[in-house]
Amino acid sequence: MIEDKNQKRTSLEQLGEFGLIEHLTKDFAISHESTIKGIGDDAAILDYKNRKTVLSTDLLVEGVHFDLAYMPLKHLGYKAAMVNLSDIYSMNAIATQLTVSVAVSNRFPLEALEDLYAGIELATKGYNVDLIGGDTTSSKTGLLISITAIGSIEEKDITYRSGAKPNDLLVVSGDLGGAYMGLQVLERENEVFKVNPNSQPDLEPYSYIVERQLKPEARKDIVEILEKLEVKPTSMIDISDGLSSEILHLCKESNVGCDLYEDKIPLDPTVIAACEEFKMDSTLVALSGGEDYELLFTVDQKDFEKIKGNPHLTVIGFMTDKDQGAHLVTRGETKIPLKAQGWNSFEE
Amino acid sequence: MIEDKNQKRTSLEQLGEFGLIEHLTKDFAISHESTIKGIGDDAAILDYKNRKTVLSTDLLVEGVHFDLAYMPLKHLGYKAAMVNLSDIYSMNAIATQLTVSVAVSNRFPLEALEDLYAGIELATKGYNVDLIGGDTTSSKTGLLISITAIGSIEEKDITYRSGAKPNDLLVVSGDLGGAYMGLQVLERENEVFKVNPNSQPDLEPYSYIVERQLKPEARKDIVEILEKLEVKPTSMIDISDGLSSEILHLCKESNVGCDLYEDKIPLDPTVIAACEEFKMDSTLVALSGGEDYELLFTVDQKDFEKIKGNPHLTVIGFMTDKDQGAHLVTRGETKIPLKAQGWNSFEE
Repeated sequence: MIEDKNQKRTSLEQLGEFGLIEHLTKDFAISHESTIKGIGDDAAILDYKNRKTVLSTDLLVEGVHFDLAYMPLKHLGYKAAMVNLSDIYSMNAIATQLTVSVAVSNRFPLEALEDLYAGIELATKGYNVDLIGGDTTSSKTGLLISITAIGSIEEKDITYRSGAKPNDLLVVSGDLGGAYMGLQVLERENEVFKVNPNSQPDLEPYSYIVERQLKPEARKDIVEILEKLEVKPTSMIDISDGLSSEILHLCKESNVGCDLYEDKIPLDPTVIAACEEFKMDSTLVALSGGEDYELLFTVDQKDFEKIKGNPHLTVIGFMTDKDQGAHLVTRGETKIPLKAQGWNSFEE
Repeated sequence: MIEDKNQKRTSLEQLGEFGLIEHLTKDFAISHESTIKGIGDDAAILDYKNRKTVLSTDLLVEGVHFDLAYMPLKHLGYKAAMVNLSDIYSMNAIATQLTVSVAVSNRFPLEALEDLYAGIELATKGYNVDLIGGDTTSSKTGLLISITAIGSIEEKDITYRSGAKPNDLLVVSGDLGGAYMGLQVLERENEVFKVNPNSQPDLEPYSYIVERQLKPEARKDIVEILEKLEVKPTSMIDISDGLSSEILHLCKESNVGCDLYEDKIPLDPTVIAACEEFKMDSTLVALSGGEDYELLFTVDQKDFEKIKGNPHLTVIGFMTDKDQGAHLVTRGETKIPLKAQGWNSFEE
């Protein structure tokens, strides 16, 4: 978190565009048979044989999606990869390749980009995906990352947002609200640091939620678990904007309603403690916080026995007829309409 | 070129992120059987059956790759698509899908993005590609576009940069230097406009080169012509950075040298006239200008009869042994080593 002013700085001009790409990507190995040609030509060539290609892309902008004051570049590279891999897993597919494009201003030395790519490399190794292309260029201000993730899937396994039926169970992986509370802690420490640059923050009590913010993990394991359990979700989405926003996406695309039970929403004790400290409502944090990158999906009731008791999965509600709408059923058994209060990149 | 200060302005906040994507992409039709699912889920699903997937991505940054002072947004959208499609064609493949991600600052109203997407739509229709995804977000400053183009190809037709052999003929499509000279004209008129905003530029004599800069066309037709002629290039690349830079890429990747003949370089009369007016050397402009998006490729000598006399194709030299290096053979029959003087995005 603390910037080292004495670090080595190599200017990007020294390398030039082609030299830079070569330098940053030389340690990335190719491990998929489907990667026929990666970096080094006008385009990459991929071969999925009889499987379908799955493709998703995201743009991350400094000052909008991340703040380098508390987001180390290595973590940023890792997280940028996770955000995209998560989109592939939420189709029930397995990710196989990534492209990474970066625009940077002159204030970033080569070493900064090396850190960023070290994070991307960690992600490619941990999630077994090949880096196959990208673009590096200069920007007038700040850092911008554009990532495209590619995967493959058999037709029968594809899970859209649109397949949920009334009475399907609504299931979420992991726990919610951690990434948002981690951000609150980091923003508070950053304010303290601005006032007193010698202060050393003690983040130890918050390590779980800070890690949820700085180093989220896309839930490849859930796709694998569901395959092992022989459960095919009827619909699926990943939680980037907050639980309520994602539930409303599933409802809209599937033409159904939903009853979500407040007391079922999985919360880590650290999240509950942080919510108390920051005087925030933990349900609201889970509903609107976002960036948890958990998977939210629906399953047919007949699959309940298969997922029951799995420590990674929590049933949090069920789908209803469309005309019943989407509601939160509170602990006091009041029904409140769900609203999308997730992150909106065009609001300040 | 002249900004209309009274145009309608709808702020992006009014629509929100999802509303914006829906609004901008609602008129894009899907025309490929390979597009199983386009915009509207976490990822797109594509099906190339037994063909290989070809994928290329580019990042275009305001103030680095384009200047909105003389680049209308509709043209920018069109050109951004062309830049990427060109990479697919230079693998000898046919492009089938595009993703478009855009980051914009608050100074852009909805109508500006509509213009940008109108240009992209024109490109998707003219080149028969489906828009299948993307991302829209805000930026702190300026406009940034990230495009990924996807295509497909049969294995036997893939043309890398690496297949050229000594004695292969070096061939280029169309003519060179136009985009660069068009930029000179536009930059000059922009300077005049700054001094006298009431001046109306007469671009008529420069219409060909201005169009080469503002509305380049990717050479899908060349891929189709080569297929009809039953000519498979031994190597291929598109000309984005200038002829000499691209020749050096082919030489490096193919482990060969090259003799390029100055008197064979195809130049449009408008380019020659503009070079005289701007006191520039037309050979240097063709070698280093860039942005022509023509295809540069090598063919076996036995294919000479097939391409000879084709009005779209010009033989400009031949490949040699690597140790002979890459040279320009001038009109005066002097040999000058080729240098990459193409556009470098990290130089100011």
